[in-house]
Amino acid sequence: MTMPPPGRRDQLVFMPIGGVGEIGMNLGLYGYGPERDRTWLVVDLGIAFAGPDLPGADVILPDVSYLEEERGNIAGILITHAHEDHFGALLDLWPRLRVPVYATAFTKGLFEAKRASDPGGDVPITLVKPGEPFDLGPFNVEYINVAHSIPESNALAIRTPLGTVIHTGDWKLDDTPVLGLPTDAARLKAIGDEGVLALVCDSTNAMREGRSPSETEVAASLAEIVGAAKQRIAFTTFASNVGRTRSIALAAAAARREVVVVGRAMSRAIDVAGELGYLDGLPPFLDQDDFAHLPRHRVVLLLTGSQGEPRAALARIVEEDHKAVDLDPGDTVVFSSRAIPGNEVPINRLINGLIRRGVKVITDHDGLVHVSGHPRRDELREMYSWVRPQVAVPVHGEPMHLAAHAELARGLGVPEVRVIADGAMLRLAPGRPEVVDHVEVERLYRDGTLIGGLEAMGIAERRRLAFAGHVGVSVILSAKGELDADPEIMATGIPIRDGAGRPLEEAIHAAVLGTLESLPRARRRDPEVVREAVRRAVRSAVAEAWGKKPVCSVFVAVL
Amino acid sequence: MTMPPPGRRDQLVFMPIGGVGEIGMNLGLYGYGPERDRTWLVVDLGIAFAGPDLPGADVILPDVSYLEEERGNIAGILITHAHEDHFGALLDLWPRLRVPVYATAFTKGLFEAKRASDPGGDVPITLVKPGEPFDLGPFNVEYINVAHSIPESNALAIRTPLGTVIHTGDWKLDDTPVLGLPTDAARLKAIGDEGVLALVCDSTNAMREGRSPSETEVAASLAEIVGAAKQRIAFTTFASNVGRTRSIALAAAAARREVVVVGRAMSRAIDVAGELGYLDGLPPFLDQDDFAHLPRHRVVLLLTGSQGEPRAALARIVEEDHKAVDLDPGDTVVFSSRAIPGNEVPINRLINGLIRRGVKVITDHDGLVHVSGHPRRDELREMYSWVRPQVAVPVHGEPMHLAAHAELARGLGVPEVRVIADGAMLRLAPGRPEVVDHVEVERLYRDGTLIGGLEAMGIAERRRLAFAGHVGVSVILSAKGELDADPEIMATGIPIRDGAGRPLEEAIHAAVLGTLESLPRARRRDPEVVREAVRRAVRSAVAEAWGKKPVCSVFVAVL
Repeated sequence: MTMPPPGRRDQLVFMPIGGVGEIGMNLGLYGYGPERDRTWLVVDLGIAFAGPDLPGADVILPDVSYLEEERGNIAGILITHAHEDHFGALLDLWPRLRVPVYATAFTKGLFEAKRASDPGGDVPITLVKPGEPFDLGPFNVEYINVAHSIPESNALAIRTPLGTVIHTGDWKLDDTPVLGLPTDAARLKAIGDEGVLALVCDSTNAMREGRSPSETEVAASLAEIVGAAKQRIAFTTFASNVGRTRSIALAAAAARREVVVVGRAMSRAIDVAGELGYLDGLPPFLDQDDFAHLPRHRVVLLLTGSQGEPRAALARIVEEDHKAVDLDPGDTVVFSSRAIPGNEVPINRLINGLIRRGVKVITDHDGLVHVSGHPRRDELREMYSWVRPQVAVPVHGEPMHLAAHAELARGLGVPEVRVIADGAMLRLAPGRPEVVDHVEVERLYRDGTLIGGLEAMGIAERRRLAFAGHVGVSVILSAKGELDADPEIMATGIPIRDGAGRPLEEAIHAAVLGTLESLPRARRRDPEVVREAVRRAVRSAVAEAWGKKPVCSVFVAVL
Repeated sequence: MTMPPPGRRDQLVFMPIGGVGEIGMNLGLYGYGPERDRTWLVVDLGIAFAGPDLPGADVILPDVSYLEEERGNIAGILITHAHEDHFGALLDLWPRLRVPVYATAFTKGLFEAKRASDPGGDVPITLVKPGEPFDLGPFNVEYINVAHSIPESNALAIRTPLGTVIHTGDWKLDDTPVLGLPTDAARLKAIGDEGVLALVCDSTNAMREGRSPSETEVAASLAEIVGAAKQRIAFTTFASNVGRTRSIALAAAAARREVVVVGRAMSRAIDVAGELGYLDGLPPFLDQDDFAHLPRHRVVLLLTGSQGEPRAALARIVEEDHKAVDLDPGDTVVFSSRAIPGNEVPINRLINGLIRRGVKVITDHDGLVHVSGHPRRDELREMYSWVRPQVAVPVHGEPMHLAAHAELARGLGVPEVRVIADGAMLRLAPGRPEVVDHVEVERLYRDGTLIGGLEAMGIAERRRLAFAGHVGVSVILSAKGELDADPEIMATGIPIRDGAGRPLEEAIHAAVLGTLESLPRARRRDPEVVREAVRRAVRSAVAEAWGKKPVCSVFVAVL
C-alpha cells in the first residue's frame, strides 16, 4: 500500500483524553495534517466506575468538549473491543459527536443488545474485519486480531504519510485461547518489517514479570473443580468473557451438569456470542426458571456480580433476595475473576456472606480460576521485538504501570519513550516526539439519568452533605423586625444529641434566637443580613457540640 | 497453683462483642459463676476505622451497653497489646465502665502518650508483667510473651476452677525478632501439659500456608535497600512497629545516614519505646527541623502515612504541603507495610503521586520489606501442638478466616471447634461447648467529637444526602390559604440543570406552585397537609428530571 507524501507542514499527533491516569476509561485521539487543520481519529470511548469519593455518581465519562469543538474534523471513532472501559461511553456521548463509528461484529452486537435494554438514540456502527484495511481521511486503518478476555479484541495499525502507529488496545499472548485466534504475531511482525513509527501499548500488567497463563490452563482447572464438586457449583465472572463461559459450559457438560445463567449482562453476552457462533457445539444454556427443577448435583450456575455489585445476581442470592435461585450449605461458589481495585471490600463482604451460610468459596488465591487479559513483561518484550517502534507511548495504566512499562521499553532499546498525561498532545512526527499542546481535560459523571461535571451535578456539594449533614432554618419577621413566630429548624444528618445528652436542635434554636436578639432592629429587616447571621450562628452552635459545621439553608421572610 | 472446686452451678462462658466479624475491633468477654451472677473479664477494647459506607464517621467502636449493665460484675479489662484494634477504644469508652485496666509497660506508656495529646479523663492502668500471674475475682490471669509487630504483645492464660483458657491475642512465631523475645513456647507447652480447656486464637492469616518470615529477614532486606540507595530514602510503616523502626535505624547507621522522624504517631512511639530501652544502642533520631540541613545521600526518612491517610506525613509530602520535608526525583520511598483492606485506592493514589514526581517506590510486591505479625497455618499448627485444647474458638478474623482456621483445627483433631458470631455467649464448661445466650450487639461510631449509633449520629441520613442531595422549600400562606410571597427554594447537591438545560429549581418551583393550586383552600390552611403535599411534589419533580429523589425539608407558615 502506498501513501501520498506528507505535506510540508503536516504533523502526526497523539493525545490521550483518558487511559493514562488513575482511572481506567480509554479515549485516544490521533490527528494528522497541518497544525490548524488536523483530521482526527478517535480510538475508543470508554467509561470508568465511580468510587465512594463521588457520592451518588455511577460512572465517570471522558470529557469530550475538545472532540465537540473539532467534530467537523473527526473522521471516525474506532472501537477496539467491547469492554466498558473502551466502549461504555458510546451510548451517552455519541449524540454529542455524531461521527461514524467502526467496530467488529461482536462489539457491534453487544452494543446493540445493551442499547435495546437502555434506550437511547440510534448509533450507526460500520462493521469492520481484521485484515481488511480501509481509508479514513488521511489515515489507513487495519484491525489486527489480538487475544484478550473478550471475543474480537483488536490492535489497530494506523498508517499515515508520516508513518505507521500500532495502537494495541487490550491484548495478551495466548497460543491456546479457548475462543478465537491467538494474537496475530505474523501480521504484527510484517508491519514491523515495513517500519513502525510508534507503538501505543497496554501497560496494565507492566509491573508483573513473566507471561500470563493461557485460558486453556484455566479451563482445565475449572473442569477439575466442577468434576470434584458434590453439590451445586456456581461461577461468577465478567459477563463479556465468553471464552470463560465456554470453558465453564464444557466443564459442566463433561460432568453431566446443566448450565443455568443468572443475570442480565450474562444472558446478553451469551445471546450475542451465540448468534456469532462462539458457543457452537455446546448444550443449550438454561435460564433461572429452570433452576428449581434441577437436582443439586446436576447444576452449574453462571452468575453476574463478581465485583460485589449489590444489584447483581450473586449479591442478591447471598442476601436471599433472589426470586429464582438460592444456595445451600455444601454448595460452592468460584470467583473466576479478580478484584478491580476499589472493589475489595464489597467482594470480601460477599465471600463472608457465603461462608456464613456454609457455602464453600474458591478464588484466584486458591487455584488457577482466572487469568488476566493483559500482557506481562515477557509478552511486552515479545510485542516490542515484533513491532520495533521508533517511539513507545505507554497507555492504559496508572502512573506506576506507565513508569514500569517505560522503563522496560527503554531497556529494550526503543529510541524514544514518552509517558504523557491526559490532555497532552504529543507530536509523533516529524522530528523527535514532543508535547506540542495541552488541552484542559475535565471529567463527566453519570448520576441518575443526567450527565455533567462535578459541580454541575451537585457531587461536590453532596460530599459536604455526606461529611457534616444539613440544617434548614426558617425565620419569619414582622415589618418591624420582630419575630412573627418561633423559628423552625429541620436538621438532617447531624447528631440528635450533644455530649451532655441535650437535643442539638435546642442548641440551634437558642443560637438562632440569640443571633436575632443581638441584631439591631433596623438590620433585622434586611433578609440577607439575617440569613447570613443565622447561618453563621447555626454552624458555630453545631460545631461547638460536634466539631463539624453542617451545610445550612436559611429562609428569611420579612412580612 | 490450686483453684477451689467449681460450684455446682458455675459456668465458664466466652462472648465476643467484636473480633469475629468483618471489621477488626477486638473485645472479648469471659464470664465465670452461676448464670445469674457471673463475674466478667474483658479482654481488649479495640476500634476499627470507618470506611466510605459510613460518611463522616472516623472510627467504629464496640457496643459496650452489655458491659455497662454488668459493670458491677466486671473484675477488670486486660489489654493484650497496644494496637488500635485492641486498645483504641479505651480512652472513649472507659468512662462508661470505670473498672480496673491491666497492661504491660509499653501499652501503658503508649496509651498515656496518646492521652496527653488527646485529652480525656484519667484512666488508671495497673502494670502487669509476663510470668507473674495474678488473681482477678474467680480468675487467675497470666500474661505470656508472644512475638508480634509491636513490643509487648501477650497471650493470656485465664485459669478458672472449670479449666484454663489460652487467649492468644495477636501473635506469630519468630525465633529472631528484632526486638523482644520470641513467643514463649516453653510456657505455652507447660500450660498445655497441665491441660487446657479452650484456645481462643488469632485467625488473620489462617488462609495462608506455611510460616511467616522473621523480622530479621526483613531487617536484612531493608539494610540492602538503604545500602544501594543513591539519594534520599524514606520508609513509611506502622508507627507502633518499633522492631521495624529499630531495623531501619540500624540500616541507616550502617550506611552512615541520619534518621529523620516525621509524623506525630511515629515520634510518640519512638519516645515511649526509647524510655523503655527498646531503642538502646542506636544513634539519636532527628526531627523534621533537621531535614533541611542534611545532604540527600545522608538521610533516611521515617514517615507516618503508609495507609494513604490524607493528613499523615507521606500524603502531605506528596501533595507538597509539608512545611519541613520534601522529596525530589531520584529519591526512593519504601512502603514497609501492607494495605489494610479498603485502603488500596488511597495507597495507590499516593504511589502514583510519587511516581509522577519521579520518586522510586518499593512495596512488598518488590521485595521483603514487610512481614505480617500474624500466624500462618504452620504456626497455628505449632500452637495447637503446644496447647492441645479441648475446644478451639477462632477469633480475630472475617468469616472466611474463621472458617479456614476452624477447618485447620478440626484437621488437627481438636475435639470441639466452635465458630461463633459477635454477641453469642458460648458456654465453654461444664459439658460440651454450646451457645447458651445471645446479646444484641450494635456498633458505636466516633463522628466529630461525639460518639453514638448510626441513627443517633445522623450517619444513616447522611447516606441519603450523599446519594441524592437536599432541597429546602419555604411556603408562607395567609390565613385564607393564599400565598403570601413566592415560595423560596434552596437546593444543595442536586444537578443544576435538567437534560434539556433548564434550571432544575424552576421545575421545583413550578411543582410547588402547582401543588398549592391543586389543594382545596381549606386544606391549604393545615401546615402538615401542605408540607407533605409539597414534599411529595418536589421529590417527584426532581425524580422526573434526574431519576433520584432528594431529601426534602419543607417549612410551612400559615399566618
